[in-house]
Amino acid sequence: MAKREKISMSVIRRLPRYYRFLGLLESHGIVRISSKDLAARMGVNASQIRQDFNCFGEFGQQGYGYMVSRLRETTGEILGLHNAYKAVVVGAGNLGRAITSHISFERHGFFLAGIFDNSPQKIGTFIHDVPVFDVAELEAFCKREKPVMAAICVPLSAAGRIADTLYSCGVRSFWNFTHYDIAMEYSDAIVENVHLNDSLMTLCYRISNPEQKASL
Amino acid sequence: MAKREKISMSVIRRLPRYYRFLGLLESHGIVRISSKDLAARMGVNASQIRQDFNCFGEFGQQGYGYMVSRLRETTGEILGLHNAYKAVVVGAGNLGRAITSHISFERHGFFLAGIFDNSPQKIGTFIHDVPVFDVAELEAFCKREKPVMAAICVPLSAAGRIADTLYSCGVRSFWNFTHYDIAMEYSDAIVENVHLNDSLMTLCYRISNPEQKASL
Repeated sequence: MAKREKISMSVIRRLPRYYRFLGLLESHGIVRISSKDLAARMGVNASQIRQDFNCFGEFGQQGYGYMVSRLRETTGEILGLHNAYKAVVVGAGNLGRAITSHISFERHGFFLAGIFDNSPQKIGTFIHDVPVFDVAELEAFCKREKPVMAAICVPLSAAGRIADTLYSCGVRSFWNFTHYDIAMEYSDAIVENVHLNDSLMTLCYRISNPEQKASL
Repeated sequence: MAKREKISMSVIRRLPRYYRFLGLLESHGIVRISSKDLAARMGVNASQIRQDFNCFGEFGQQGYGYMVSRLRETTGEILGLHNAYKAVVVGAGNLGRAITSHISFERHGFFLAGIFDNSPQKIGTFIHDVPVFDVAELEAFCKREKPVMAAICVPLSAAGRIADTLYSCGVRSFWNFTHYDIAMEYSDAIVENVHLNDSLMTLCYRISNPEQKASL
């Protein structure tokens, strides 16, 4: 893992899928796979796979292929999944509940320390063993616990205020489910947006233009 | 809207964001905007904006800029948002409930006709005015109502079976929230994946590699 500079975001964004696929292969007892075979199973190009992994060093041998579990482990290390970055979820509505229950933060590099909401019915409860706190305590909590990342699952009208509070307490990474443009507000923030509306509109375009070639 | 061939998916994927931004400008009473100004507000490159819109015809005049509401309307037309493609949501767990309550299908080219689940507590109820039906009725419903699109919000273990049922009833477009690879199974299906785990892993990488240049 030497040459680690200037890796394009397109490569980075393909790594999680490789990681998932390699896990699937591992669970099926597959020990070794050629880039050609991996490519066929993933519906991508073999040379792209080789190029992508080459960004991170030497894996696999020509004509021999990749060792599945080693490549998966290394991909996980590259992604940083061995970390346990402290995280909070703000908003315990359907979306906040969905990500808390469906997503294993622990297996993806994070430790979910708390969920914040303003509903008296929710405060004091647990969602998947994670405590729900009063959003009024968010600032004090962040100053004390210093979470690294916050998932923003509040209505758009509240998103700016919540992002301000978090940023002022030192949070610099955001998993943003709102359309509030955190990256525009804070140029030094690391923001991953999940824009469900945009995904739905893209689907609408593709249905309306079936000649449009699909892409992953 | 003449030249409509071979438009890259990267351009298509940027259109929803333009559409949202133009709506925001419109709501702020902004009538006209230069590509330079729009670019600055969106944190992108002005020539990219011009190139993107040029894929779809002539908009705006050099030195005069774009008419905001006309450009927004046209972008919506290009995306096909005036359609009302019949859709179903399969799975009324937190995720299915979240997208049903948070996403306006109507404003994004779809009409949500029903939600399907296997829980007796949920069947017969309504989520945001949309009826929850027994998943056992999915096949009969699809044959009768002919939905165009299905959002898949079921556990991975059920995803293959559900996709099979839908596909066999003629559904060819999927908004897929699972890691089941629908596009690999059905090469003629139009699939938009929302891989929340992948997004979280990408965030983990970027936190672990802060020198990595951010990208939208």
